[in-house]
Amino acid sequence: MEKIKCIISYDGSGFSGFQIQPKKRTVQGELEKALTKIHKGAHVRIQASGRTDTGVHAKGQTIHFETPYDIPKANWKQALNTLLPDDLFVQEIAFMPASFHARYDVVEKEYRYYVWNEKEPDVFKRNYAYNFRYDLNMEEIRKACSYLEGTHDFTTFSSAKATTKGSKERTLYQVTCEKRGSEIEFIFRGSGFLYNMVRIIVGVLLDVGQGRRKSADITALLEKRDRQLVGETIPPQGLYLWRVKYKEDE
Amino acid sequence: MEKIKCIISYDGSGFSGFQIQPKKRTVQGELEKALTKIHKGAHVRIQASGRTDTGVHAKGQTIHFETPYDIPKANWKQALNTLLPDDLFVQEIAFMPASFHARYDVVEKEYRYYVWNEKEPDVFKRNYAYNFRYDLNMEEIRKACSYLEGTHDFTTFSSAKATTKGSKERTLYQVTCEKRGSEIEFIFRGSGFLYNMVRIIVGVLLDVGQGRRKSADITALLEKRDRQLVGETIPPQGLYLWRVKYKEDE
Repeated sequence: MEKIKCIISYDGSGFSGFQIQPKKRTVQGELEKALTKIHKGAHVRIQASGRTDTGVHAKGQTIHFETPYDIPKANWKQALNTLLPDDLFVQEIAFMPASFHARYDVVEKEYRYYVWNEKEPDVFKRNYAYNFRYDLNMEEIRKACSYLEGTHDFTTFSSAKATTKGSKERTLYQVTCEKRGSEIEFIFRGSGFLYNMVRIIVGVLLDVGQGRRKSADITALLEKRDRQLVGETIPPQGLYLWRVKYKEDE
Repeated sequence: MEKIKCIISYDGSGFSGFQIQPKKRTVQGELEKALTKIHKGAHVRIQASGRTDTGVHAKGQTIHFETPYDIPKANWKQALNTLLPDDLFVQEIAFMPASFHARYDVVEKEYRYYVWNEKEPDVFKRNYAYNFRYDLNMEEIRKACSYLEGTHDFTTFSSAKATTKGSKERTLYQVTCEKRGSEIEFIFRGSGFLYNMVRIIVGVLLDVGQGRRKSADITALLEKRDRQLVGETIPPQGLYLWRVKYKEDE
């Protein structure tokens, strides 16, 4: 058997998230349908670096699957992209050792969140950024970002519904925020992310930018480990799984 | 009766074009549905500066309608945007003299066409630009653009199916082309445009950029007045009705 890694991108607008579900259009569903067709009806199961929710996008999600076929990289890519719908694209194929696993071998993930900071919505951005109407103090947001960097227990900033067992400790290597014109870009690089973590964090950063919280409150919020202390999870359409890094990539 | 002008934007991806059609989702259909609701069931007909095809976008389309209601501008805007779907937005409302007509009073229109000039498609651009894979000589394209400026008979560059009666003479005030990264932006400002004119012209400009035609051929093509001499109409998703100008705007 050959183990194959694919780097894929998708526009999350038309999918009910990544994970396969009966009667729903999902990223996993479309990928497995295409692979099963290539394998003449034999079902092929894929494994991803992690799931993404309905409406969340990916610039560089990673999946793997196993195949008995011996086909060159370029042909895999072409066969898959011919069968896949046009909101889902395979960017890169790699042959991996049998031990590789798209989820367990992740060493770093990067997420980005885009905010469209204008009083009025833009029809062309409605599925690709979160329209936030109020003025923001970027300096305060940047200070708050720096308090999030490092190793912390992120219980306060993850969904109470999370089924994750074990430690909620994660390390954020980079948390930055930049404004260009009306677009605000948040970048998060970390060892791993809890369920809804980026969307909850950006919600709090927007509170800080509005002056509803102080940047220094972040430390106390982290220490209290209580999801109830912070606001709602902000919308999915601003969120992009940007890149997944493995040992081999270093 | 009050005559009201609206400047609207829409993402053409989800519409079967501008013009109302039974059982199809159209821009005119959605606008008239919202207006009829505001007028408690009395049907309100709108007039646009012109139609746009399926998949074509608008940053600044203009429409007008008549109403017996005396409502302030801001309230019209809010009432309409509350009722309209989120891929269609009213940007501006203006009260006009009774003689105003959104189609007959146009003095200038601006269209833009966006090309994504990369070997591979981008899932986030598939509905918003035309993916053209081949290298282009921008200098040659710019020369060809300059041959298109001025007053010409554009029969060669308009759909043979066009129902337009009368002269095919139009004046193009500006035809420019600029490349930024992988994105190429074509700007056309003119007195008026024939059916499919921008999409046929950009197709020929891409032929010129590929070296399949010379820029100087444009003059001969215009003179021959024969649609058969040039290639197919390129896809709608790169096209944006950018702005419509009226006497009052000058």
